[in-house]
Amino acid sequence: MARSRFGPVTSSDLYPVSRLAAVQEATAKAGLDALLLTPGPDLRYVTGYEALPLERLTCLVVPAAGESYLMVPRLELPAAQASPAARLGVEFVAWDETDDPYDLVARRLGRVATVGLADRMWAMASLRFRAAMPEAEQVLAGTVLRELRMRKSAVEVDALREAGEAIDAVHRQVPQFLRAGRTEREVGRDIHDAILAAGHATVDFVIVASGPNGASPHHELSDRVIQAGEPVVVDIGGQFHSGYCSDSTRNYCIGEPPAEYKEYFQVLQAAQDAACEAVRPGVSCESIDAAAREVIAQAGYGDHFIHRTGHGIGIETHEEPYIVSGNTEPMEPGFAFSVEPGIYLAGKHGARIEDILVCTDTGGERLNNTTRDLVIV
Amino acid sequence: MARSRFGPVTSSDLYPVSRLAAVQEATAKAGLDALLLTPGPDLRYVTGYEALPLERLTCLVVPAAGESYLMVPRLELPAAQASPAARLGVEFVAWDETDDPYDLVARRLGRVATVGLADRMWAMASLRFRAAMPEAEQVLAGTVLRELRMRKSAVEVDALREAGEAIDAVHRQVPQFLRAGRTEREVGRDIHDAILAAGHATVDFVIVASGPNGASPHHELSDRVIQAGEPVVVDIGGQFHSGYCSDSTRNYCIGEPPAEYKEYFQVLQAAQDAACEAVRPGVSCESIDAAAREVIAQAGYGDHFIHRTGHGIGIETHEEPYIVSGNTEPMEPGFAFSVEPGIYLAGKHGARIEDILVCTDTGGERLNNTTRDLVIV
Repeated sequence: MARSRFGPVTSSDLYPVSRLAAVQEATAKAGLDALLLTPGPDLRYVTGYEALPLERLTCLVVPAAGESYLMVPRLELPAAQASPAARLGVEFVAWDETDDPYDLVARRLGRVATVGLADRMWAMASLRFRAAMPEAEQVLAGTVLRELRMRKSAVEVDALREAGEAIDAVHRQVPQFLRAGRTEREVGRDIHDAILAAGHATVDFVIVASGPNGASPHHELSDRVIQAGEPVVVDIGGQFHSGYCSDSTRNYCIGEPPAEYKEYFQVLQAAQDAACEAVRPGVSCESIDAAAREVIAQAGYGDHFIHRTGHGIGIETHEEPYIVSGNTEPMEPGFAFSVEPGIYLAGKHGARIEDILVCTDTGGERLNNTTRDLVIV
Repeated sequence: MARSRFGPVTSSDLYPVSRLAAVQEATAKAGLDALLLTPGPDLRYVTGYEALPLERLTCLVVPAAGESYLMVPRLELPAAQASPAARLGVEFVAWDETDDPYDLVARRLGRVATVGLADRMWAMASLRFRAAMPEAEQVLAGTVLRELRMRKSAVEVDALREAGEAIDAVHRQVPQFLRAGRTEREVGRDIHDAILAAGHATVDFVIVASGPNGASPHHELSDRVIQAGEPVVVDIGGQFHSGYCSDSTRNYCIGEPPAEYKEYFQVLQAAQDAACEAVRPGVSCESIDAAAREVIAQAGYGDHFIHRTGHGIGIETHEEPYIVSGNTEPMEPGFAFSVEPGIYLAGKHGARIEDILVCTDTGGERLNNTTRDLVIV
């Protein structure tokens, strides 16, 4: 699960030192006694520290009152000290190979009623914390952190914009890679290299879904040979060197597409536009989903749009807010998310158009700007 | 967190269909009512399915009695059906965007006393399962699966051997990449590409720790410029296309090393040899740690060997058994693990020698076979 990291050092603008105080305040306000943040996006958001996800416990403890501290295996101490977490001025508590770090945290915290666990904390840690603090109710740290993470600062929006421009540059190269006779995997490998060359630190996914594979929204790559006349869905993204993510889907065809495809592709474009135009502060997340769904349903393709319209994006590709029926959360400036309706005809082909948008004071700004028309190669 | 996957299809030899029955039997024997396996190594071990780690629940439910089934988000269904999990003949239960999949599992399982969670199950899933099944005690699935995962079959050992040969081939290229005036990151990038070119599906870590950075066992890469006369620790590994992992550490020096370094490097070689020679069925894991530690301590460097001697390896780089003081587990044929003592002089330099070994009927077989001497470049 470890990543290769070849990018520049994390920007202190993106992970401001002031964030820890805001998190502590939010923790107290939510009535939690402490957050326990193990390696993953929650820890990175608060500290900028991209700690290795290891079986040995690394954990930032943020009590609602008092000093935060970072529990760290002794052999990770130099890496932690060299990380952006060192800027925070919190104590680093190194534990040794024969210590029980869960017990150390429990004893230091004392009696607590409720602790917030990093949303991605592994069971191997959460169950150890439960055993060490049997009286503490465990809830998700996300209940506190989502409020902060959803509202992107101007510098975070800039980072998403930069990642968006980079993935756009990759989409512009896709026509060079795509041709009949190549396999999806061969094309995917070229795209993978282009994503890294464009400044991403990691490639998170490369979907090249040709012909009938296009009808599976999360198909990735296969050894299927791409044929003339086939539409191809290309959905790609990665983590830019800033730590913020890109994600954009475009549609290509090897020559002229089938007539049926052309028909629903127009519907899809209209649906995606409608959803993007629906974005503004105060409207609910589900209303944006509904805006896309309505266009598709009215054209008779309702049963072929089989997923939600979008997901939030930031330091994770999928985070809150989700653009889905049932999510009544009102949009606010700084919310960043995908708008990606799709139409899928099982056994035949499919299409999806995806942009990342950020909600501004007046509407939605698209962070992806390559053509949304079908690209004939 | 998703990986790019460009390798060939998972071998059915490595993930035999018979494994599910063995897991079910072990679950019953351990007194658990069911295992709940979300995406990650545990799910992959049982099914061969490298499911995307998503916020939407994918979960293999293995009841101690009755039929296993895979809960899967509807839009992941085609990917699941195309995965090796399809060979198992278990029911795939697709859930829709507005369903509560945790509740669906709870209702289908009925009243259960104890469930085993995938060791890496995210808190966002484990807490939902807890809420849906408040009376079920949660334990780690690892308590059941470790017994199976620790004992590698002949075909698994072959996969580790193949991965070992591939990373050895990369170490043989390192002298071409390493020279004074280059940064660790530049060298790391070349190694990264070589790891992929050698047949790995992913690069899991690239440590190029020059001079004083060598004294930090988990230092990765920095923009530090490598200087003449400096020792460099290179610890590299990845997931081979088979899904099994490689991990090997060798030591290089740009010209002649400091005298002090030469002295302790000899000690380290003797310690690593002693630990490797201690491997045989029946001896405890901790005795192998002790074999290395004793040599280092007797030479007066005991305080500079600041980590355990090794970790198991298989479909994860770090898994059981751990070669550490306190682990009295007796070695068995098929156990595969690293032997990697190190000596670290803070502020100066450090060294670590690491091979993957497999326990055979008569001793330990090293799966890494490049020179363990200091390589002068």
